Amino acid sequence: MSDRGERLVDLSEVVGWQRPPLPPGSAIGILGSGQLGRMLAQAAARLGFNVHIYCPTSGPAFDVSRHTTKAAFDDRAALTVFAERVDVITYEFENVPVDAVRLLAGRKPVAPGLQALSVAQDRLSEKTFLRDLGLPLARFESVDSEAALAAALQTLDAPCLLKTRRFGYDGKGQVALQPGDDVALAWQEMAGHPAVLEQRVSFAQELSVLLVRGRDGGMASYDCPTNTHQDGILRSSVVPGDLPLSVYTQAVAMAEKVATALDYVGVLAVELFYTGGEANGSDAAGDAGPDAGGTPGVPLVINEIAPRVHNSGHWTSEACVVDQFENHMRAIAGWPLGPCGRHSDCEMTNLLGDDVAGWLDLARESEGRLHIYGKREARDGRKMGHITRLKQRT
Amino acid sequence: MSDRGERLVDLSEVVGWQRPPLPPGSAIGILGSGQLGRMLAQAAARLGFNVHIYCPTSGPAFDVSRHTTKAAFDDRAALTVFAERVDVITYEFENVPVDAVRLLAGRKPVAPGLQALSVAQDRLSEKTFLRDLGLPLARFESVDSEAALAAALQTLDAPCLLKTRRFGYDGKGQVALQPGDDVALAWQEMAGHPAVLEQRVSFAQELSVLLVRGRDGGMASYDCPTNTHQDGILRSSVVPGDLPLSVYTQAVAMAEKVATALDYVGVLAVELFYTGGEANGSDAAGDAGPDAGGTPGVPLVINEIAPRVHNSGHWTSEACVVDQFENHMRAIAGWPLGPCGRHSDCEMTNLLGDDVAGWLDLARESEGRLHIYGKREARDGRKMGHITRLKQRT
Repeated sequence: MSDRGERLVDLSEVVGWQRPPLPPGSAIGILGSGQLGRMLAQAAARLGFNVHIYCPTSGPAFDVSRHTTKAAFDDRAALTVFAERVDVITYEFENVPVDAVRLLAGRKPVAPGLQALSVAQDRLSEKTFLRDLGLPLARFESVDSEAALAAALQTLDAPCLLKTRRFGYDGKGQVALQPGDDVALAWQEMAGHPAVLEQRVSFAQELSVLLVRGRDGGMASYDCPTNTHQDGILRSSVVPGDLPLSVYTQAVAMAEKVATALDYVGVLAVELFYTGGEANGSDAAGDAGPDAGGTPGVPLVINEIAPRVHNSGHWTSEACVVDQFENHMRAIAGWPLGPCGRHSDCEMTNLLGDDVAGWLDLARESEGRLHIYGKREARDGRKMGHITRLKQRT
Repeated sequence: MSDRGERLVDLSEVVGWQRPPLPPGSAIGILGSGQLGRMLAQAAARLGFNVHIYCPTSGPAFDVSRHTTKAAFDDRAALTVFAERVDVITYEFENVPVDAVRLLAGRKPVAPGLQALSVAQDRLSEKTFLRDLGLPLARFESVDSEAALAAALQTLDAPCLLKTRRFGYDGKGQVALQPGDDVALAWQEMAGHPAVLEQRVSFAQELSVLLVRGRDGGMASYDCPTNTHQDGILRSSVVPGDLPLSVYTQAVAMAEKVATALDYVGVLAVELFYTGGEANGSDAAGDAGPDAGGTPGVPLVINEIAPRVHNSGHWTSEACVVDQFENHMRAIAGWPLGPCGRHSDCEMTNLLGDDVAGWLDLARESEGRLHIYGKREARDGRKMGHITRLKQRT
């Protein structure tokens, strides 16, 4: 579906893409109304842009924007009016329907763009794309039926993870398969949706690259955090991570390869597993390739990419002069990218579900900066806010 | 009008004032739609508050808020509906009519409150209040006619400044009077408005105190910047300032006296003149009192107070974990105050009028964080944005 070289859209043909940088006062369209859209909207406003949020449901981003459109993603009339009112369009999540973005891209520049979106919203496309780029990732098989699942389990060794190709996030739409598990039961969980079986990677640590690529192809990346997940949901990101510098250099090189291949514009997140030895800050560790796939000599496996600002980059708001949200705006508006340097060590912790009920105690912390997303209902595991605790200055 | 001890409103009688801290999801009402309202709204949103802007004219704050009311300050019906929809009310500028705030204060808590507002919006009340508190300020006389001006000029020695009692800001509504100047001409400039004549203070430096006071009377203040004005408009604020520490200690003590006397809640700015010797960071300097008023032995004269967040505190957004806007929100919502500590030295420079046309070059600066307010028209001297340039980490 997505070979190297093949592009779903030739960016040079997209309406208006070659324009000069958008001046303050221009309008940024954002698809999606979650907390990422909210923080993107605030960053855009700080640069003097007007913001217009488009989403089928109102959400945190609606509260911080004068201009909003509440309409379905297949409402062509609403999409057309929206496109007329903005100067560039971006999205806060990768599950925006490709058809909606294709319609918009024919009218106004869309960044990160169609190809990044379609690759990232389908696990099979994503994995195929990454494999074709020669990047290390876990072995995987496409699974469209119970029989295909049984066959795939013969090819890959359990433990494996069965995941829907589309619309999974934060650990949803996933089943872990141990040796001897009931194949029929696992397939039932997919509810008929096409899926991917991937070999489970044993890893020492999860990390991510937060890269920003400008319209001119220039790239910069923030320091890689060490990420801790719980039940498939990000709990915390710590910078600096404690892996050898050479590992981070390799991780950034991989992310740059992805961004370049997609002719990407904006912030791109790449989540990886570190499969080497103990994380100890020494370059001696981690030259063993993973058993489950990957590249010999490279102690990293790419888990997934997200064509957007990312939860593991929220710490940049406190520890960097220009954070991921502003750099995303700078990139899509054709501005010079801001510096990604970090002036402080810090730890970002998500407030999930009822965690947010502790807001008063959190507000008492002297080195913590609190973010609450304004969601009405604190469902279990739902991302309600985060706190970034600043540590030592660098 | 405003003696020590006399209060225009007993806060304990104001509706709802003794409530517990407002939880996230509560609604903050903001009177005024300028850039201060915009930055206050963004800080409120970051803490999970909803924001409702009320202003007779739309402006930068309207663009970042879902809920807005465009209505006159004497529209009692609109004010009443607004009060019903919010949980606490604040203002971004001191020229909101007292009658509007009195109406609102009978329905919902208003902070900083009626007394601070009425004192600060009338130069005569302000100066009388400060003098009655025993604080150092330039000698002044109330002037209601040409004859009174002539008489006042006999009492005070030129050079003097004649200022309207109300609605002056950024150097507007002011006339400088040198010895021998035409009294009739100067009075004409006041266009019949009551005025104050104040003796001009010769000073070495302008500084400000940015203090935040909580509902419980607890106070904290940011480091005092050195401020540079041009044509009556703030050009830049630099932290740290280069005055002796003892001077800053005295300045903060004065601001605390003001805040306590007003039973103030929120961020209060106090602008001062340093009338001592050369600013050299040594405690030896500055024990000479000013000729034009002030207190012998204290090298400071209060220029004016602003019952709100202040332009000379914009640098706190980059150099502090909790900036002036968030601390104002914390105070009025009854939250614990955030730390006012500074992690970096920096310089904030205003972008006035056409300065903002240089946005692209400014965006290229590697240590500058750019703020553009989204105003449609870049009139001469109008505050269009600012840039904070981070220097050394502290």
